[in-house]
Amino acid sequence: MHESEHPGQTSPDPADPADLDTRIPTLGPAKIPNPRKNSLFVDDEQGVSVNILRTVHGKAPRTAVMEQAGPRSHIYFDPPKTKCAVVTCGGLCPGINDVIRSIVMEAHHGYKVSSVLGVRYGLAGFIPKNDPDVVDLTPSYVADIHEFGGTVLGTSRGPQDPQDVVDALERLNVGVLFMLGGVGTMRAARAIHEVIARRSLRIAIVCIPKTVDNDIHYVSRTFGFDTAVEKAIEAIRCAHIEALGVPYGIGVVKLMGRESGFIAAAAALSIKEVNFVLVPEQAFVLDGPGGFLPELESRLRRRGHAVVAVAEGAGQHLLPQSGLTDASGNTVLGDICGLLLSRIKSHFKDVLPVTVKYIDPSYIIRSVPAGAADRAHCNMLGAMAVHAGMAGKTGLMVSPLHEVPAHIPLPLVTAGRRQMDLQSSFWQQVMDSTGQSQPKSC
Amino acid sequence: MHESEHPGQTSPDPADPADLDTRIPTLGPAKIPNPRKNSLFVDDEQGVSVNILRTVHGKAPRTAVMEQAGPRSHIYFDPPKTKCAVVTCGGLCPGINDVIRSIVMEAHHGYKVSSVLGVRYGLAGFIPKNDPDVVDLTPSYVADIHEFGGTVLGTSRGPQDPQDVVDALERLNVGVLFMLGGVGTMRAARAIHEVIARRSLRIAIVCIPKTVDNDIHYVSRTFGFDTAVEKAIEAIRCAHIEALGVPYGIGVVKLMGRESGFIAAAAALSIKEVNFVLVPEQAFVLDGPGGFLPELESRLRRRGHAVVAVAEGAGQHLLPQSGLTDASGNTVLGDICGLLLSRIKSHFKDVLPVTVKYIDPSYIIRSVPAGAADRAHCNMLGAMAVHAGMAGKTGLMVSPLHEVPAHIPLPLVTAGRRQMDLQSSFWQQVMDSTGQSQPKSC
Amino acid sequence: MHESEHPGQTSPDPADPADLDTRIPTLGPAKIPNPRKNSLFVDDEQGVSVNILRTVHGKAPRTAVMEQAGPRSHIYFDPPKTKCAVVTCGGLCPGINDVIRSIVMEAHHGYKVSSVLGVRYGLAGFIPKNDPDVVDLTPSYVADIHEFGGTVLGTSRGPQDPQDVVDALERLNVGVLFMLGGVGTMRAARAIHEVIARRSLRIAIVCIPKTVDNDIHYVSRTFGFDTAVEKAIEAIRCAHIEALGVPYGIGVVKLMGRESGFIAAAAALSIKEVNFVLVPEQAFVLDGPGGFLPELESRLRRRGHAVVAVAEGAGQHLLPQSGLTDASGNTVLGDICGLLLSRIKSHFKDVLPVTVKYIDPSYIIRSVPAGAADRAHCNMLGAMAVHAGMAGKTGLMVSPLHEVPAHIPLPLVTAGRRQMDLQSSFWQQVMDSTGQSQPKSC
Amino acid sequence: MHESEHPGQTSPDPADPADLDTRIPTLGPAKIPNPRKNSLFVDDEQGVSVNILRTVHGKAPRTAVMEQAGPRSHIYFDPPKTKCAVVTCGGLCPGINDVIRSIVMEAHHGYKVSSVLGVRYGLAGFIPKNDPDVVDLTPSYVADIHEFGGTVLGTSRGPQDPQDVVDALERLNVGVLFMLGGVGTMRAARAIHEVIARRSLRIAIVCIPKTVDNDIHYVSRTFGFDTAVEKAIEAIRCAHIEALGVPYGIGVVKLMGRESGFIAAAAALSIKEVNFVLVPEQAFVLDGPGGFLPELESRLRRRGHAVVAVAEGAGQHLLPQSGLTDASGNTVLGDICGLLLSRIKSHFKDVLPVTVKYIDPSYIIRSVPAGAADRAHCNMLGAMAVHAGMAGKTGLMVSPLHEVPAHIPLPLVTAGRRQMDLQSSFWQQVMDSTGQSQPKSC
Repeated sequence: MHESEHPGQTSPDPADPADLDTRIPTLGPAKIPNPRKNSLFVDDEQGVSVNILRTVHGKAPRTAVMEQAGPRSHIYFDPPKTKCAVVTCGGLCPGINDVIRSIVMEAHHGYKVSSVLGVRYGLAGFIPKNDPDVVDLTPSYVADIHEFGGTVLGTSRGPQDPQDVVDALERLNVGVLFMLGGVGTMRAARAIHEVIARRSLRIAIVCIPKTVDNDIHYVSRTFGFDTAVEKAIEAIRCAHIEALGVPYGIGVVKLMGRESGFIAAAAALSIKEVNFVLVPEQAFVLDGPGGFLPELESRLRRRGHAVVAVAEGAGQHLLPQSGLTDASGNTVLGDICGLLLSRIKSHFKDVLPVTVKYIDPSYIIRSVPAGAADRAHCNMLGAMAVHAGMAGKTGLMVSPLHEVPAHIPLPLVTAGRRQMDLQSSFWQQVMDSTGQSQPKSC
Repeated sequence: MHESEHPGQTSPDPADPADLDTRIPTLGPAKIPNPRKNSLFVDDEQGVSVNILRTVHGKAPRTAVMEQAGPRSHIYFDPPKTKCAVVTCGGLCPGINDVIRSIVMEAHHGYKVSSVLGVRYGLAGFIPKNDPDVVDLTPSYVADIHEFGGTVLGTSRGPQDPQDVVDALERLNVGVLFMLGGVGTMRAARAIHEVIARRSLRIAIVCIPKTVDNDIHYVSRTFGFDTAVEKAIEAIRCAHIEALGVPYGIGVVKLMGRESGFIAAAAALSIKEVNFVLVPEQAFVLDGPGGFLPELESRLRRRGHAVVAVAEGAGQHLLPQSGLTDASGNTVLGDICGLLLSRIKSHFKDVLPVTVKYIDPSYIIRSVPAGAADRAHCNMLGAMAVHAGMAGKTGLMVSPLHEVPAHIPLPLVTAGRRQMDLQSSFWQQVMDSTGQSQPKSC
Repeated sequence: MHESEHPGQTSPDPADPADLDTRIPTLGPAKIPNPRKNSLFVDDEQGVSVNILRTVHGKAPRTAVMEQAGPRSHIYFDPPKTKCAVVTCGGLCPGINDVIRSIVMEAHHGYKVSSVLGVRYGLAGFIPKNDPDVVDLTPSYVADIHEFGGTVLGTSRGPQDPQDVVDALERLNVGVLFMLGGVGTMRAARAIHEVIARRSLRIAIVCIPKTVDNDIHYVSRTFGFDTAVEKAIEAIRCAHIEALGVPYGIGVVKLMGRESGFIAAAAALSIKEVNFVLVPEQAFVLDGPGGFLPELESRLRRRGHAVVAVAEGAGQHLLPQSGLTDASGNTVLGDICGLLLSRIKSHFKDVLPVTVKYIDPSYIIRSVPAGAADRAHCNMLGAMAVHAGMAGKTGLMVSPLHEVPAHIPLPLVTAGRRQMDLQSSFWQQVMDSTGQSQPKSC
Repeated sequence: MHESEHPGQTSPDPADPADLDTRIPTLGPAKIPNPRKNSLFVDDEQGVSVNILRTVHGKAPRTAVMEQAGPRSHIYFDPPKTKCAVVTCGGLCPGINDVIRSIVMEAHHGYKVSSVLGVRYGLAGFIPKNDPDVVDLTPSYVADIHEFGGTVLGTSRGPQDPQDVVDALERLNVGVLFMLGGVGTMRAARAIHEVIARRSLRIAIVCIPKTVDNDIHYVSRTFGFDTAVEKAIEAIRCAHIEALGVPYGIGVVKLMGRESGFIAAAAALSIKEVNFVLVPEQAFVLDGPGGFLPELESRLRRRGHAVVAVAEGAGQHLLPQSGLTDASGNTVLGDICGLLLSRIKSHFKDVLPVTVKYIDPSYIIRSVPAGAADRAHCNMLGAMAVHAGMAGKTGLMVSPLHEVPAHIPLPLVTAGRRQMDLQSSFWQQVMDSTGQSQPKSC
């Protein structure tokens, strides 16, 4: 039995959940009464089980418990004396502006902090040589930003020296820094948190997981994911229409997913026209019995058209490795779609008169405004992050765990990336939906 | 501490979860090997905890466990000899056709049943005097239906004599009946299940919760809910634009929600332009300090415009009760929006030159095709229902519990309707988002 | 042969086009070189024929010619000394913000005028007792407004004393006033223009036709119309799905169109699910042979469902006349949909068990942002209006005539409202599309 | 003065319009009364002026007149004995299924022809060796096809031997063939028409212009164009958001337009975020004063981000010519976007740290269902084509001319491709909207 199995979130998390250290660091005692009126406060003792699966008749398993997120009755930072800051890192994702807006609205209206600064263009915005430009994020500044995709703050990839970042935080007199980013950003956050601890500063670091790949441990579903899948299926529908429009038409759609194929898989569950889903989690062979090309040929002979959804990180074992990394420290991926297009062409030459239509909708998927469900999610994350930060909690990520807003310590998140469990019901459903046989592994 | 607290699904469920009888009735031993190839099978012993909240340092609470859904290694019904049937009841909701399609595809491709019948126009389609018309739901018949809203089968309200329904099931030689509907439909399903049991028939009744109101116990989020909220916020955005376009503009949007205000609340969390959310869970006063009208006036004086989202079942205490019920047995609701429009007019006469724009988008919300997240959800529900039915399980509903597909016995579902918990973090977030003070209760 | 017959624009215009006085008043000679660089200038002698229909072999008919719009090589107003103002009047319509933005961008970037003022809430914003609030419309203020529906300036209905308006224009030192509105607004513009002329002031009045009803003479297609039809068909599709979902389902959709049924007709041409289009241009009977109710019954008996699109001004002959007018001076319309719903109910009682679903999407249609085609249209109108105003032209409306941007003198526009020609190919197509027989007239 | 100047359709047509031979060939006298009831018939003498521009005070210019389209009172083909056929050729375009549906509905319901055949996969579907597969296009077959993009018939590129096509038409006993395609298809239609004439057959060839590039002479606006622009601006908005999200971000969007840049130009008029439009009509230089790269650099230094919309056929003079042609006989275009991306990279190396995001939305643009305005347009075209064909008219294209449905003889259409007139008001508006100076020509 695997620790967690959910539609859209099916990866086993890395360690035995019963032994996890789920304690959240704090800057000190929270002695100031929370200024929020009529608020329902959450107690630090309230938690949510990490492992919720068990046998029907057996004993409850041991499991770790994560602290619930929410406003605390007493807080650490004195709001009128507290400056917050927000920074957005890594690639675009639907909903970033919603989170920024929610942080600003909660900090201003809920707590009445003195100000919220917006750091421009990611962690690079903290570095003096970049001549950084800091925005005063007032409620009126952020009022309409959620109607636009992207991030009003701008973003960049790659870490910066945590000493420099902490220097800047001190210089700007920031009490709580909210960082939006993926696993790379969380690692940077951890390093910044450690420098702060070493310098005994009173600065809280609160992370909000942002990755359209949905590849963060203990995060059921990252914000923007549903919107991304919605846009992905628009592209897939077009690929299907194109494939139908010609004899032996093949539509190939490249989707995001460097190490985890969640978008491709969820899209295939949502739109029934996908016949093959290729994901990083599953190495596959191109030729020979059970290989992708013979299976594709078989599909084309039976039905006359086919749609292939390819996560960008799929099939890396088939490609020469560049050994290069990008500014974020990610391996530069080999061009799996280029390989597939070329191999499809050579495979079907003199076999079937196929026509291939290739669609890469990546930038269209990640830069749209968030849909409704993602908006509510973003709103919640922003508010929960402010509650955590004002209470003096630090070195953590806020995220729903089994749909309950929770505090996750950064070390549990930075160990690796969440991937789909190929033994899960979720992946089984994907295989059923595509009618794809489990592709032959290498 | 409440039993379950989730964004979008915050109601306390009715009983002490540790004492629930979560056993699922079966028609008999499942001895036939499941014909699905390469399938990952779920064991009847695999379960999911009902209560997942606990104290961080205390002991795990006692909790009931629901059986996980999924394909079983052995099944009860012999597929080539088995006919299935599908019936859709109650109001429209985005995604019904997706569920129908998923049932048909799983039954045909996964199990190769002999046929799947579609019963027209709800339970009325079983009744001989209605000259019922049954459709043969083949894979090609359902191939594209998910691109259309509504239900290809048609629907109707209201129960029918369960004896008549079971007569029809026998006459049609149906082995598994899939019923899509809300709490009323579940009650009918229970009655049908009991007649079947009394007659010792080998017919399984498997329910799939369908209600755009999201008001079913043990259902985290009903299918179509996200899509409905997405459409609701389009209407709210228009109301906001209309309100902004004139001095002292007030936009009033009526949303679905007879006994539970989930749509109105989730919409208010998604779009930040809602200033007042009126829901059935919270009785409110119109006049006097803290009343709705003075609060609205105060908002208008401060900001010059306002948006009010009203669940159709809100404020029933302010209206004369008709005592009537509709065909579904639901109380005919009083016209809260009519009352509000009239009281707003009289309140502001000679006070402020307000302009009210009223939008009732109900039929536009419920009849659109499902969005991507709902599609994946529908796909899963249909497949899980087929797995349950083929395994001989009966008298149950399939639904995700804490995002894990599970089997819920019908008696746990038919006891009442799920409502929002006004003491939950979810409602707190709604109050924060609107800036609304907790309206003064009666 | 009728004077003008176009898809979407089929009304005969009122007078013999050869005798029209198409001259545009000017404030004086245009002596200042146009500061626009690299611009292609339009000469005052360039025109476009009003009547473009003729016999294939006969002589060209006499026809009036309208002046083409566009930048002139020399202008009347000295840009650095010129203030412009914009006012938006009447109901909302998709694209108003696009027009405002285009005016501001052209005035600032093309001509470098000293400023563009935005008058709040329609003509009422000129009246001292309303404590009017004028906005400085800078390029950065308007940069993103086109992403939002409605009007950033606000609007109001009803005329104001033209003397007061001209007083305000003098006080504000406005050189060119751009007025967006329908026929009522054009009449107000004419009155203002006459006061200006009597006072020998150097103020140009340039109108841009804004009416979602598309009921303005010499205007092929008002901006926002295509977007409105796009939203209308969304509502109609929902009505169709609702009607299909129950036995003998009837979907009734109310659409805008006080005196002209263009939206309902164009929607019926775009979506094929409309079975009956009821418009103001055609009086119809409810009962008896060829009447609406027997035709509806016949349709229901044949096909089991029906969709009716009703322009709000249809069937007024069937209703008691209130004799009231609204703030815009428009007759308060009788509630045709209320009548239809009630008469449908009584007609089918004991005849067929019909279910009626009624949708009024009006505020959703008119308050959305404009679609692409309307955006380009708005952009053109705003620029053309600025060109006309800076050249000292006044008392005119800018609009495409047979797709060529042109100047139309206000007196030609204010005489009445454009209606659909029931003898046109356009209406014939509508009848063909619905399968509706020409409803029996009174 | 140029012959025709319209928003979106600004190219001068090739010849002096007064000398055009606008006569439409016919198969013989139309003696059979049109079976359409209550129809408004159009007379062959009714025409529409080709040139509608003139001087305001001068004489009306000589101009050719095109025959108006519409149902004739008498027809040539006896409907119950007449088979029609439809074939779709070339690339996908929004609205093809709407046209097919309209043809089928008009032929069946308006004229009650014996049948309408659908030829699969373009002209190749007529060729025996392809084992062609002909579909019976009944009203129920086409009832819902307009909800899907693409063409239910499939398509292919390239001509076939017209003798073979006519052989097939004789074998299938087709009376009227409706051909949807671009200029290449019109040329094929002309050749087929000539073979029919030489064989003295009674087969009418009626074309409907289908090209998303909008590059057909005498066609104001091809169907699907508005929808394509709507989708294009979605991609451009994403490119803008991506460009804003990083320092010195450049978004490059490739749009369709082999020889004519209408889509790129219309998109730039609709969405104001485009800073450079590169089109085939205008050769430009990359380097040196006024060149694209220095202008881009200047924009980036001023504003920090830029969006470039590139028609696929732009800048071919900068690329080596392959000399190859595709199956449609079109020159294989050089990869202008590849060149631009490479030259941008080299230009800014060591100059500015630019980030380029490249979006190619082509297949997403052309395969979506049509928007409302295009739907009405398609509906009209299909009906007009049937009216023309049943009346025995042949060798023609139906299309609106100045918004009036008209018959255009094929020789006037096949001479070349319509391009934007760089001296037109339309292009001037595009230049104004982008703020782009007229790029320096070679």
